[in-house]
Amino acid sequence: MKPFMDKDFLLSTDTAKTLYHEHAAKMPIIDYHCHINPMEIALDKQYKTITEIWLGGKMEDGSYFGDHYKWRLMRSNGVPEQLVTGDADPEDKFVAWARTLPNAIGNPLYHWTNLELQRYFGVTEALNEKNAREIYRHCNEILATKEMSVRGIIEKSNVKLICTTDDPIDTLKPHELIKADPTCKVKVLPAFRPDKAMRIDKPEFAGYMDKLEAVSGVKIDSMEALRKAMLNRIDYFEAHGCRVSDHALDNTLCEIATESELDEILRKGRSGEPVTQREYEAFHTALLLCCAKAYAEKQWVMQLHFGCLRNNSTKYYKLLGADTGFDSMNDGTTAQNLAKFLDLLESAGALPRTILYSLNPADNGVIATVMGGFQTNAEVPGKIQIGSAWWFNDHKYGMEQQMTDLMNLGVIGNFVGMLTDSRSYLSYTRHEYFRRILCNKFGAIVENGEYPADFDTLGRIVENISYNNTLRYFRFDEVID
Amino acid sequence: MKPFMDKDFLLSTDTAKTLYHEHAAKMPIIDYHCHINPMEIALDKQYKTITEIWLGGKMEDGSYFGDHYKWRLMRSNGVPEQLVTGDADPEDKFVAWARTLPNAIGNPLYHWTNLELQRYFGVTEALNEKNAREIYRHCNEILATKEMSVRGIIEKSNVKLICTTDDPIDTLKPHELIKADPTCKVKVLPAFRPDKAMRIDKPEFAGYMDKLEAVSGVKIDSMEALRKAMLNRIDYFEAHGCRVSDHALDNTLCEIATESELDEILRKGRSGEPVTQREYEAFHTALLLCCAKAYAEKQWVMQLHFGCLRNNSTKYYKLLGADTGFDSMNDGTTAQNLAKFLDLLESAGALPRTILYSLNPADNGVIATVMGGFQTNAEVPGKIQIGSAWWFNDHKYGMEQQMTDLMNLGVIGNFVGMLTDSRSYLSYTRHEYFRRILCNKFGAIVENGEYPADFDTLGRIVENISYNNTLRYFRFDEVID
Amino acid sequence: MKPFMDKDFLLSTDTAKTLYHEHAAKMPIIDYHCHINPMEIALDKQYKTITEIWLGGKMEDGSYFGDHYKWRLMRSNGVPEQLVTGDADPEDKFVAWARTLPNAIGNPLYHWTNLELQRYFGVTEALNEKNAREIYRHCNEILATKEMSVRGIIEKSNVKLICTTDDPIDTLKPHELIKADPTCKVKVLPAFRPDKAMRIDKPEFAGYMDKLEAVSGVKIDSMEALRKAMLNRIDYFEAHGCRVSDHALDNTLCEIATESELDEILRKGRSGEPVTQREYEAFHTALLLCCAKAYAEKQWVMQLHFGCLRNNSTKYYKLLGADTGFDSMNDGTTAQNLAKFLDLLESAGALPRTILYSLNPADNGVIATVMGGFQTNAEVPGKIQIGSAWWFNDHKYGMEQQMTDLMNLGVIGNFVGMLTDSRSYLSYTRHEYFRRILCNKFGAIVENGEYPADFDTLGRIVENISYNNTLRYFRFDEVID
Repeated sequence: MKPFMDKDFLLSTDTAKTLYHEHAAKMPIIDYHCHINPMEIALDKQYKTITEIWLGGKMEDGSYFGDHYKWRLMRSNGVPEQLVTGDADPEDKFVAWARTLPNAIGNPLYHWTNLELQRYFGVTEALNEKNAREIYRHCNEILATKEMSVRGIIEKSNVKLICTTDDPIDTLKPHELIKADPTCKVKVLPAFRPDKAMRIDKPEFAGYMDKLEAVSGVKIDSMEALRKAMLNRIDYFEAHGCRVSDHALDNTLCEIATESELDEILRKGRSGEPVTQREYEAFHTALLLCCAKAYAEKQWVMQLHFGCLRNNSTKYYKLLGADTGFDSMNDGTTAQNLAKFLDLLESAGALPRTILYSLNPADNGVIATVMGGFQTNAEVPGKIQIGSAWWFNDHKYGMEQQMTDLMNLGVIGNFVGMLTDSRSYLSYTRHEYFRRILCNKFGAIVENGEYPADFDTLGRIVENISYNNTLRYFRFDEVID
Repeated sequence: MKPFMDKDFLLSTDTAKTLYHEHAAKMPIIDYHCHINPMEIALDKQYKTITEIWLGGKMEDGSYFGDHYKWRLMRSNGVPEQLVTGDADPEDKFVAWARTLPNAIGNPLYHWTNLELQRYFGVTEALNEKNAREIYRHCNEILATKEMSVRGIIEKSNVKLICTTDDPIDTLKPHELIKADPTCKVKVLPAFRPDKAMRIDKPEFAGYMDKLEAVSGVKIDSMEALRKAMLNRIDYFEAHGCRVSDHALDNTLCEIATESELDEILRKGRSGEPVTQREYEAFHTALLLCCAKAYAEKQWVMQLHFGCLRNNSTKYYKLLGADTGFDSMNDGTTAQNLAKFLDLLESAGALPRTILYSLNPADNGVIATVMGGFQTNAEVPGKIQIGSAWWFNDHKYGMEQQMTDLMNLGVIGNFVGMLTDSRSYLSYTRHEYFRRILCNKFGAIVENGEYPADFDTLGRIVENISYNNTLRYFRFDEVID
Repeated sequence: MKPFMDKDFLLSTDTAKTLYHEHAAKMPIIDYHCHINPMEIALDKQYKTITEIWLGGKMEDGSYFGDHYKWRLMRSNGVPEQLVTGDADPEDKFVAWARTLPNAIGNPLYHWTNLELQRYFGVTEALNEKNAREIYRHCNEILATKEMSVRGIIEKSNVKLICTTDDPIDTLKPHELIKADPTCKVKVLPAFRPDKAMRIDKPEFAGYMDKLEAVSGVKIDSMEALRKAMLNRIDYFEAHGCRVSDHALDNTLCEIATESELDEILRKGRSGEPVTQREYEAFHTALLLCCAKAYAEKQWVMQLHFGCLRNNSTKYYKLLGADTGFDSMNDGTTAQNLAKFLDLLESAGALPRTILYSLNPADNGVIATVMGGFQTNAEVPGKIQIGSAWWFNDHKYGMEQQMTDLMNLGVIGNFVGMLTDSRSYLSYTRHEYFRRILCNKFGAIVENGEYPADFDTLGRIVENISYNNTLRYFRFDEVID
């Protein structure tokens, strides 16, 4: 029996151990997709309790922010909402979390929680209800030290570069503050996430257009004007070092409309009139095409996330808002729209570097085979990527499945690897988790006689997937050493 | 090499063996979903041949009843229908079954058949064509003993409680007989399965409404009247101890119509006029909502089965009727309707304890993530469940997949575990099969260092999933010790 | 650690080794589905370079022919098109391929390439960029020997029978030449692939009908006349020894139209007018039904391939044509249409032996359960088959998944096993690959105590799936010894 989470955690073979300890472990981290608040880096925030950094809760502005992965698991264990997002005592919340964990055998949060306790707090005992209060006090003491400020955690984690997630109308002031601060060792860049500009089917759209108009200085009275406004913001982000965008789609889409139809759809959206599903899709497709062309020109990376159904509980959407643990995988057809959309871009000579993620792992095969048809004459190997296992899939099985699907259907050596999608500064251990699983996968293949025990090649590939591919694919090598 | 099906069958690690032998094996069985005939328990039927109890066939009323899982496998091995459901000699049918088995490497029926031979008949040799006739005679001798009457088998299997499957118009007389018989040690409760009342798209609907009208004493001349009739029957079942319902859907549905539309759809259905697909779905949704609200009020469990396509062969539907081995998995979209339906119930404050089963394992991820959004402030941990691997999925891989998906996406410690969906009294070994797979899964996780070797916690969780969770979730602890 | 690709490659247990070496390895090959050019067998072509036989390229008629599996992998590694299908030097192309391979850990092409190097060229070192030029010269020398002519390779590979892929309008002259040549030891039969006659939605349809009219001598002025023309060609193929057809569908279909509607749809197609999706599906369904009935009568095997989306890149379709590496898996619903189509045929007493393949492995469960309902009273065990893992799925995991799904849901003992779908004479090692995976699967089951170590039965089943089932299912036992 292997000991619980020791140094060879998830590494079953000697090959896996060598690849991890001698190659993967030493590589720095680029976290190109996360949801942390850049102002906390600018201010070098110091968290007060492990509950605050792990679970979050109600913010000062009345919104809810925190690790909704954990909230969901607590609810699934019957924990009352009072102890999840309510105003219960932080220590009691922590104990409720500790009580939940042992029941969640096999859940990735079991591993992540205990990995974070080991790496950042030196706690090697698995968290449970009995040791919860002692661990609570211990973690809080450590969190009070200067080395565990937000920047301290980031440095300790060997993170070289972070991309936050930002709205086109954001001022990017925190990024300016960080850039101007010579004491901040991590590079922090914005990522362009224009979802709100796309969702003409939502009641918030009209108000959002007003803001976009104001910030861009472009009067948005036609589709072409909207494009101009978007390009204005893309330029603004470019000037702030942005090299990556992110788009959330319910499902893949590719609906074509004429320019005059688009103008009329936009007019409806701005005046708050409802649009049909077809109109929404045509509008979204058109604006996405416009953005994608700009990304291609600027050599940005386009991330497309789909297969997601959001805010399923009306009751809790009203109480807590979005991103609070009430989303799910979506299903439907993916192949036709995805292939058609990429084809449109390629035909226009405007296909950017693209990472495709579906929240539904049933789409992996479709994504990996569609992308294989758009890799020709690329400026970078693996120009179109299937993104690493994401959100509901970033557990051992989901990661292994994504790697296996990529290996079977493509060239894993060009993979840009892990992101955290995180809302907590303690989540960098997810990169460790990913790398252990990757090395274990390769180890099994080699030790089963399916690939030569050529450690030069294997070591290089592991280091590439851990770090170097990301550096090159996003052109971060122009920004960091 | 492990010996064939010895005491450590399916248990690969020491941890798995300890968990199974010291915890899972000793727990009694609650079989909360099966298709056995309660009258056979009331009469304590004695089966004459292993063919009769295993394969069944044509009943006295001309219908066909038996284990269509086995029928299907025989047909897939080229066995002529005469030896499957026809009037061939029972011994010849048994030999045809025995001839099929060795060809079906890896099929769960191979394991179930040989497990049943071991546990109930002391036969440790694997069944094949050569030993078939000797085993046939041996089994029939044992079946003739009093200990192998229907009640004898149930007691021998350590079954504490059985839920049968019953139609709203059933009188539940067998249940009354069993309840009145102090010699019957097993508790037998009805389950409410109102599929026929929902299927306004079927030619049998109009006639069914007449019967429902008669038995409920409610004149069904409007949707509201139909609701009254259904609630009348739910009350009747409640009075007979019922605590669980079961609904079969082709796919998830959630189509909303106005009350006057529903009245008109019902009028069409009662007068035998065809309804459109949209009308059918609206009617089904409305009646299901009505039932779900009643279940929530009475704290019944609602089981929703979907992803199933039935009676695919017109020829054999005409010859043999339904449930004779001609169904398949279905596909389509699941997420949107499922989320919307649960949301409607939650918004109305009327979401009952719900178990979701899809026959298509591709739905597991969708189910497990949708359900995670409806667990808040629940009266029981794991209020919404993803049901255990069912029908075409209750093999080792399907069970492992369901457990893995549940572990990755939820809290397995709250799982209510196995059901048999059985048509034979010898099927209780499926619980053993399930428990072995569960313990083996946990054993692998622990011995791989992914969970501490804390046998107090692990043993408790295994016992909960085997028995205690079911006891509590269905409130059977109010009925049995 | 197992050595790289030694004699026990992919065989993890002693049982697996015994089954493979003593049973599977010695069985001949029937390659019932491939894309090689029969004229090359007639002429006993001698390939000049390993690049030519492995990668192909631009043919003399200006079309592109070759192993698009390899092309796609090279593109995914960033190889410029010039070195893929362009006119670069053959040795440079080979080196570009060699450079791609090591990056493609886990890809089946890694195994196939190195297996072919071992079996046909005695190269045991794994191919990489460093040894590429030496291996290139070595292989070319061996390819120049008489034993490595096309027929030489076929004999060396122990191939008894090959079915090519042929269009209804083909003359089948190469087949006549081969048949007339007593020195040719392999049996070569045509396969009937009438896709072009079905695709009334494509611009090529009208021209194709003209050719079909000419070759069949039937004036195609109605649906019934088209049926006559098709039956004429089926008779022609039958006279040339054909016993198998192949149909490519984007997705399953079953749309019913009246005869006069069909006549009108055909008229549109012949005059180049566009047809709607519904019209296309109705036409395709009707013509497929007509063919299927003829197959049933002649006891031919019908192969249905679906779940495929083709020519996704407009740009490269224009440059390189079809089948050049730009296709993908498709998704959508499968169950309803598939069940309905088989039901129509069964109801008409005209259901032929049928092999169902989806390129999307998510369909496996649907296929295996739908087919289970159409196996009654069959003239051959396993009349309806789920085809072996195909195209994007013929890697270790895909094959294991198909076998596991078949084992769980059907009777694997009746499986007709592997095909190559190949475009190269060196691909016969894919049968070895398949058989190793099969034996390894059975070995794991036996050594885990899930099936008795009965080597008579196991050996017989392995030999059946490797060869004997195919012989019997396609009635090739009437043609070869």
